[in-house]
Amino acid sequence: MSGCGLALGEIARHIGAELRGDPELRILRLNTLRDAEAGDLAFLANKGYREQLAGTAASAVILGADDAGGFAGAALLAADPYVAYARATALFDDSPREAVGIHTKAMVDASARIDPTASVGPLAVIGPEVVVGPGTRIGAGTSIGAGSRIGARCRIAANVAVYHRVYIGDEVVVHSGAVLGADGFGFANDGGRWVKIHQLGGVVIGDRVEIGACTTVDRGALGDTVIEAGVILDNHVQIGHNVRLGENTAMAAYAAIAGSTTIGKNCVFAGQSGAVGHIRVCDNVIAQARCSLSKSISRPGSYSGDLLMEETPRWRRNAARFRQLDEMAKRLKKLEGNIEHES
Amino acid sequence: MSGCGLALGEIARHIGAELRGDPELRILRLNTLRDAEAGDLAFLANKGYREQLAGTAASAVILGADDAGGFAGAALLAADPYVAYARATALFDDSPREAVGIHTKAMVDASARIDPTASVGPLAVIGPEVVVGPGTRIGAGTSIGAGSRIGARCRIAANVAVYHRVYIGDEVVVHSGAVLGADGFGFANDGGRWVKIHQLGGVVIGDRVEIGACTTVDRGALGDTVIEAGVILDNHVQIGHNVRLGENTAMAAYAAIAGSTTIGKNCVFAGQSGAVGHIRVCDNVIAQARCSLSKSISRPGSYSGDLLMEETPRWRRNAARFRQLDEMAKRLKKLEGNIEHES
Amino acid sequence: MSGCGLALGEIARHIGAELRGDPELRILRLNTLRDAEAGDLAFLANKGYREQLAGTAASAVILGADDAGGFAGAALLAADPYVAYARATALFDDSPREAVGIHTKAMVDASARIDPTASVGPLAVIGPEVVVGPGTRIGAGTSIGAGSRIGARCRIAANVAVYHRVYIGDEVVVHSGAVLGADGFGFANDGGRWVKIHQLGGVVIGDRVEIGACTTVDRGALGDTVIEAGVILDNHVQIGHNVRLGENTAMAAYAAIAGSTTIGKNCVFAGQSGAVGHIRVCDNVIAQARCSLSKSISRPGSYSGDLLMEETPRWRRNAARFRQLDEMAKRLKKLEGNIEHES
Repeated sequence: MSGCGLALGEIARHIGAELRGDPELRILRLNTLRDAEAGDLAFLANKGYREQLAGTAASAVILGADDAGGFAGAALLAADPYVAYARATALFDDSPREAVGIHTKAMVDASARIDPTASVGPLAVIGPEVVVGPGTRIGAGTSIGAGSRIGARCRIAANVAVYHRVYIGDEVVVHSGAVLGADGFGFANDGGRWVKIHQLGGVVIGDRVEIGACTTVDRGALGDTVIEAGVILDNHVQIGHNVRLGENTAMAAYAAIAGSTTIGKNCVFAGQSGAVGHIRVCDNVIAQARCSLSKSISRPGSYSGDLLMEETPRWRRNAARFRQLDEMAKRLKKLEGNIEHES
Repeated sequence: MSGCGLALGEIARHIGAELRGDPELRILRLNTLRDAEAGDLAFLANKGYREQLAGTAASAVILGADDAGGFAGAALLAADPYVAYARATALFDDSPREAVGIHTKAMVDASARIDPTASVGPLAVIGPEVVVGPGTRIGAGTSIGAGSRIGARCRIAANVAVYHRVYIGDEVVVHSGAVLGADGFGFANDGGRWVKIHQLGGVVIGDRVEIGACTTVDRGALGDTVIEAGVILDNHVQIGHNVRLGENTAMAAYAAIAGSTTIGKNCVFAGQSGAVGHIRVCDNVIAQARCSLSKSISRPGSYSGDLLMEETPRWRRNAARFRQLDEMAKRLKKLEGNIEHES
Repeated sequence: MSGCGLALGEIARHIGAELRGDPELRILRLNTLRDAEAGDLAFLANKGYREQLAGTAASAVILGADDAGGFAGAALLAADPYVAYARATALFDDSPREAVGIHTKAMVDASARIDPTASVGPLAVIGPEVVVGPGTRIGAGTSIGAGSRIGARCRIAANVAVYHRVYIGDEVVVHSGAVLGADGFGFANDGGRWVKIHQLGGVVIGDRVEIGACTTVDRGALGDTVIEAGVILDNHVQIGHNVRLGENTAMAAYAAIAGSTTIGKNCVFAGQSGAVGHIRVCDNVIAQARCSLSKSISRPGSYSGDLLMEETPRWRRNAARFRQLDEMAKRLKKLEGNIEHES
């Protein structure tokens, strides 16, 4: 993005929206309807904010055809305004770009192959036989273990740890503090003492995967841990050894999938949800917040496991009764017997 | 602290306590009443430990006026003995201090401005246009992204990742493994595929904030994520994009605040608690352990959402009944109808 | 392991199994019964997989005496086939070994003592007075604070942060992103403002401990945080200040032990379980998934605190009734009174 912004027509073309207004209008930045000022492009993607449309100071708005009628200003009409907004954010991303090439203070093993269009930041450590593809950027202080491969146009942030034999596809984003390929949690108990099961497999990560800060993906015990294309993982997610995550599945913070579980495509795991080990979950399953999938699931749909909070005194009264619930059920049954007996 | 300790009178002045005893008494270290030996300064801040007072070998004790009567030894009388103890710990902190200045093996961009009284550790990477204030210490291997600013007298530990455009106030402590300014978890779903919403905002952190190890604070999507002055965050906390945390709010390990939520001042989030996105929580709210605030809260007070553990066989009996609860409620209602009918 | 594998007899000796078959048979790798090909050694440790034995293509199988009768192939008979398999994995671990010695790009303080058989990776930072024992490997970008000691034959991965005065025994494994010795979460509240309690203690970690990626062990407030020998911690575990974990205790991902709690030996904490602060838990306690031990436990056994998930509509019906539970209990009691009255 240049200093004097982008032309509205250019944005329309990029995001696939229909332009209504002056194609030469300069847009300086994106903003919400409420906070927008002159020069800003806002968006209306949630009907709850429709009332803000009339009063916005934005120079133009991304919106759907059904909202366009009541709006007189410059507009970008999109079938899905939220997707159109998402596409527009890429145009306004002015985060710093590392210079192409290997920083003089990076440590790159002589046997590694770094594409000349890639960038390797200062104090990054690239091990033997590593391959880094075109356009990929590797941040400061990141370590890539022996034999790992990173595809094209990836962004590996600063202070990421990638172990050996981790295979990463194209256009993958990995945030700081993420750890890919650490040992899975495998031990055999020998009369009280734990005997380590060395984790001999690797990790395979598909194209367009996003991995959040402090998220961990363990290497497989024998075969590989596999994350298919388009998966998005928030911060603090844990993927156990030999897990397979299907395409486009999304996991919010602290979601945890225990070892050897297979998750289908297009699933959504809310915050602090998860799945026990050694199960299979079909496509299109939603695990609501704090819901742990405790057995295999073959029916798409939403699953829950968390109670709603209440003010503590009220909560405690109900929670105390929970501890009597089995007894209550028995008393209820007994009462029913009495009633029936009397009738 | 010198090798031969501190004079009791000096400690009294520093922590604002009333001295009872010899001001020249040398104190070598702090300790608990139970473990203290000669030369130690102990403290009585919790009435539960009052019985340990008589038998302590401590050379002096920090305590409240109401406990002082029954204690014949040297004492530091304080209105709040726990706060007085906290102040005293600063005097006895002998953790290693990095030498002032930029380590020869640090990587500091030519455009960064590092105060001459700051210290930058070995293999730290300081990006373009970064500003580091007086007395601030930056640990080994820490990375500070372009345009970020760090105030005065901060302590940024080793292996911290600070992205670009993160603004940190004065006297902030950030522990290892923390990640400040990674992308928030924002994606639009386009027919099953996730389109990334580039995160264009920044992070603003107020004075005297403490951020624990492996804690993550995501950058805003459009505006900033804001952590106000005096907030304390334990390890493994997750602060989503565009969250605002009010002054002096405290969060224990694994607390998680989802995107665009505003939390008031002086709130306390216990371990594994949290709040869903897009809500407002007023001042002085306590979220008990594992309680997820699921809607906006305008009444100060305590909120709960977690059941107490029990031995597994007993737990299972009650938990099995939970799955019949709606049916039980209906049976109860039916019984009431029968009774009423009969009466 | 050489390129042409290991002799079956050699493996038998190493893992303490009884050989049935040709001792010169070459084994190229370990595998599961189902996925094994010629040249592979498989194992049968779980009766659930017994049916896969007949059809396996493995060249040999580790199994128990009771399964050996029905299997005609080469076999390694073991009292505990899972332990035998675990031992075998060590033989097939071909993860890359760093060269012995201090990498030219490591930063080692002149006062540190590194055993000549240890290896220190590139861009590792070893502080003053640190001691590193024989055979220990320290990964790239790892930081070891002043005065810390690491025993023999440890493996400290890349990007680990070890603070000052952390004492680590022999044969300890620490994965990337782990943070040992950060400040415990200690603050005194002074009229709304938090006063930091400087954390003056250290961390002591026994022999054969394994610490997962992004796991944190806080330093003690006054005394030390102690992890006894043989403890295994998965990823994202949090150990608070002054906690003591007894020998051979195991903790899965996100297990969290709050400050000053003592956990016994041979305990097992499942994923997202934990314990509140200041309690004592005896030996041989099992905390099931998401179970928070909320008071001291003196009886070995299993404790639970999590409800099983259900499909969301059904879950919601029951969860809504939970909010009426106290009222339901009162209505039940009233009905019982009526019945009794009528009888």
